[in-house]
Amino acid sequence: MTIQPFNPPRRTLMGPGPSDVHPQVLQALGKPTVGHLDPTFIAMMDEVKALLQYAFQTENAFTIAVSAPGSAGMETCFVNLMEPGDKVIVCRNGVFGERMRQNVERLGGEAVVVDDAWGTPVSVDKVADALNRHPDAKFLAFVHAETSTGALSDAKALCALAREHDVLSIVDAVTSLGGVELRVDEWGIDAIYSGSQKCLSCVPGLAPVSFSPRAVEKLKARQAPISSWFLDQSLVMGYWSGDGKRSYHHTAPVNSLYALHESLRLLQLEGLENAWARHRAMHDKLKAGLDKLGLGFVVEEAYRLPQLNAVYIPEGIDDGAVRSALLNRFNLEIGAGLGDLAGKAWRIGLMGYAAREENVTLCLAALEQVMNEARQ
Amino acid sequence: MTIQPFNPPRRTLMGPGPSDVHPQVLQALGKPTVGHLDPTFIAMMDEVKALLQYAFQTENAFTIAVSAPGSAGMETCFVNLMEPGDKVIVCRNGVFGERMRQNVERLGGEAVVVDDAWGTPVSVDKVADALNRHPDAKFLAFVHAETSTGALSDAKALCALAREHDVLSIVDAVTSLGGVELRVDEWGIDAIYSGSQKCLSCVPGLAPVSFSPRAVEKLKARQAPISSWFLDQSLVMGYWSGDGKRSYHHTAPVNSLYALHESLRLLQLEGLENAWARHRAMHDKLKAGLDKLGLGFVVEEAYRLPQLNAVYIPEGIDDGAVRSALLNRFNLEIGAGLGDLAGKAWRIGLMGYAAREENVTLCLAALEQVMNEARQ
Repeated sequence: MTIQPFNPPRRTLMGPGPSDVHPQVLQALGKPTVGHLDPTFIAMMDEVKALLQYAFQTENAFTIAVSAPGSAGMETCFVNLMEPGDKVIVCRNGVFGERMRQNVERLGGEAVVVDDAWGTPVSVDKVADALNRHPDAKFLAFVHAETSTGALSDAKALCALAREHDVLSIVDAVTSLGGVELRVDEWGIDAIYSGSQKCLSCVPGLAPVSFSPRAVEKLKARQAPISSWFLDQSLVMGYWSGDGKRSYHHTAPVNSLYALHESLRLLQLEGLENAWARHRAMHDKLKAGLDKLGLGFVVEEAYRLPQLNAVYIPEGIDDGAVRSALLNRFNLEIGAGLGDLAGKAWRIGLMGYAAREENVTLCLAALEQVMNEARQ
Repeated sequence: MTIQPFNPPRRTLMGPGPSDVHPQVLQALGKPTVGHLDPTFIAMMDEVKALLQYAFQTENAFTIAVSAPGSAGMETCFVNLMEPGDKVIVCRNGVFGERMRQNVERLGGEAVVVDDAWGTPVSVDKVADALNRHPDAKFLAFVHAETSTGALSDAKALCALAREHDVLSIVDAVTSLGGVELRVDEWGIDAIYSGSQKCLSCVPGLAPVSFSPRAVEKLKARQAPISSWFLDQSLVMGYWSGDGKRSYHHTAPVNSLYALHESLRLLQLEGLENAWARHRAMHDKLKAGLDKLGLGFVVEEAYRLPQLNAVYIPEGIDDGAVRSALLNRFNLEIGAGLGDLAGKAWRIGLMGYAAREENVTLCLAALEQVMNEARQ
């Protein structure tokens, strides 16, 4: 069997991620590999750390990129901070809240689930109530921006509640980081994770993570061993730590970190607030067009994520046929529905470098053509 | 703070990995990102699977690349196959055998450690004895090629013993895959993991893994939940499975998999046996030169890995000064000693694309210069 080199088509990525990657990021990715303990690489890692602190709006010393995808970022928070038997209030209003619950239970914790309907934000009142009913809870875990529905929750209010009740907050910012307002220090977030392939517009495979000093204290004081050697951040700190000698833990994904460095650098050059405003402006344009096409949003306007637009598939339109036509004729990827919304909704992403005027225009025009043809 | 784009120097990588990456692999890495469920990408993943089966010399249906570094490959084997309370014979003759022990104990297993001196191979007799003394053992875990010392163990004999005693074998092939003879099916290996950045000469960040049908059966029959959601291969199978619809688990590291595809393609074009012979030939050249320089090997000739040459640092020579001079003047990276060998040995890698005549010649000539200067 002779296998040919793989030549991927040039897609426009407007699904739930990976998003369009900036050409400079791809260029950075392909630069020559150096050793993971090379002094030049270690200096670059320090810059990645500083740039992540900016993106997260935090001064947390423990701010790094886990060498694996966002779901490993989620697991990093639970496996390091939670101990078996710990009670965790888990908010579930989509796929990723449910994934948090699974993390808690697999690791021997007790999950108290606060359910909200898919497409709605986490109810701050319900969480307050759960915290009152469970004074022995140790953590509050929720998803800031639910990628499965496009709903934005009030992270600021939820984290204030967590502080009030002296529990640590664990926040999923996979889809929010770089796309909507997020202020780790000001909001008092204790543990947060994200993914490289959403609004940072880097290639998939890395999970930015930041722990507050309170979270680091909890990690250092824990009694039970951390079940994962790979994700044990007390070991990883020795490699990412800025002071003195770096100690080997695992081989860092050198080239992916080049790419993350470049994508974060571009974000800093644009300015975080400008990036948030751009996502909002592109969303407004997309929304206007989707309204004209008669496509209704899954999420109410007040809680809608600009970067992830879930819209119901109109009656009589074949989900798979439309997405295939967009992909095959226009090289345009939009996302399928996930979980409860599978077959019922499309998810149109405007993430990072994908949030550009030409993408919005192409998407609307192509959708219009394809849907018209499907109706004939 | 204005951060400049990162422009890595062009190094020659002759440490314990990452190894030199072939220019075609870097080129593949930087190709435009497509979605992780794109039909073209899924077809490429099927090719990656077939190429990994070739590299491992196996027909195991469950042969994939874990979306994280080699140490996550190790954890994948233990967390999926071992259940709390299971007894595991763990062979320890270097850093990575000790890491296996830590995996077993963190995950609630009972490790029976078979120790051999650093720099020697795993003793088949000691393992036979341990298996006799522990008829309730469920696994035999060992490192095929110890990256910390450069010792090669007899995987064929050890796996035959495992079959005889009806225990599953878990084999670390991080440094062996592509560099020395390795035949998963013929030797009856049950679970094996490797890393992308050694003799495959791909960028770091992926861990090829293969499970035998016996191992898959064990996974399917397990009672205890798998503590890691991210590494749960019963879920990952739904994404990598060749038949029918792929189900979303996590976002695959798309571009890194392009690179792995190209590096495996180059290995197949060269031919596995030819690659093994090239590593051996380059090692012989390097060895002849190191002998002339008076540098003694840590490992006896019969058990020496061609791709990882650990040599003692001569008396009176400053370890750090020599490695810095090689790096700063010649852009040449060789590895420091690890664990018991820190400060006492250098580790010179000849892995994958790094196993070329120009590398051997540069390394020997540069070492000679730098050591002569250090002695003056």
